[in-house]
Amino acid sequence: VLQFCEIKSATIVSERIILGIDPGTNIMGYGVISVKNKNATMLTAGVLKLDAIDDHHLKLKRIFDKLLWIIEEYKPDELAIEAPFFGKNVQSMLKLGRAQGVAIAAALFRQLPVYEYSPRKIKMAVTGRGASTKEQVAAMLQRIASFETLPKYLDATDALAVAICHSLQLNPSATSSSASRKSKKTGSSWTTFVSQNPGKVV
Amino acid sequence: VLQFCEIKSATIVSERIILGIDPGTNIMGYGVISVKNKNATMLTAGVLKLDAIDDHHLKLKRIFDKLLWIIEEYKPDELAIEAPFFGKNVQSMLKLGRAQGVAIAAALFRQLPVYEYSPRKIKMAVTGRGASTKEQVAAMLQRIASFETLPKYLDATDALAVAICHSLQLNPSATSSSASRKSKKTGSSWTTFVSQNPGKVV
Repeated sequence: VLQFCEIKSATIVSERIILGIDPGTNIMGYGVISVKNKNATMLTAGVLKLDAIDDHHLKLKRIFDKLLWIIEEYKPDELAIEAPFFGKNVQSMLKLGRAQGVAIAAALFRQLPVYEYSPRKIKMAVTGRGASTKEQVAAMLQRIASFETLPKYLDATDALAVAICHSLQLNPSATSSSASRKSKKTGSSWTTFVSQNPGKVV
Repeated sequence: VLQFCEIKSATIVSERIILGIDPGTNIMGYGVISVKNKNATMLTAGVLKLDAIDDHHLKLKRIFDKLLWIIEEYKPDELAIEAPFFGKNVQSMLKLGRAQGVAIAAALFRQLPVYEYSPRKIKMAVTGRGASTKEQVAAMLQRIASFETLPKYLDATDALAVAICHSLQLNPSATSSSASRKSKKTGSSWTTFVSQNPGKVV
């Protein structure tokens, strides 16, 4: 029995489930990845559309409920959140802060540690350049996730990107070569990842 | 048995428990009042100090946990929140938005409807003037709540004030004369309340 427990424990430690989100009051992107040894796989990704809901509090409740459901369903070990710290005006930042707050509350309520990454840091991790466009980030992720309707899922790919970004902080060799993160000029981490993990390209 | 149930039901309907909060990332004020017929009584009021906590996420978790505890303990029917919509800069608004978001999430998680009031509206309801200082609001509330260390509890009195403000929307005659709310110049609603409810001044 002791031996069985030890083996099981070792298996759990080697796999990390990361929930990435890109929260907003009109749309929230989410993506769940599993990082096991040096491989990252996508478990799910999608968007929660909120623009048709007039009531602001109902929007916040939908975010909270959806995240609780995702956490229940995929049992992530941690939450990685795309968190811009600058915005156009105080009104939009208050709304963004509320969406972030609700999302963070859902994670903390389920005892998940929360990690935040700026959009620039995420782009850097995924494409090797901090100034990449959303489309460039999406295109990189598309190579392993094969989204068919790209514009529709830009927020979902953003969420996957922050999850991948976090996995690289945990384990530099997990989904990308360390060389691509050491320099801004070495190009895409994902290019490296795809070339090293042909089986992951679906 | 039927008669007993009817009496009990009637009693429940006539009493409303309102949780008022003034959330911030350094301190959160809270106050719970019971409004029964035309009388408002304070059930509890206090502050949650967060300035000694370095970790931002831990602050948010404390807010969430504290509100869940208050809701469990006092079983409020609704949450009234002091919600400024303007601030100095985008950074402070993002932080404020997060604190508000976490607080709202706790209420919505427990199925409480959430109502928001601007600082100006709250001041108007309590003192009859939208430009009152925090101290003037506190002084008005102090007449029924008898806080001994006033400056220390300013955020708690703010939270009580938003709860009172909300009770006035529900039932204009609950805790104040309607005359004092019809005009900005008639002075304090609380002065009227205190004069009409000497038994409530502790």
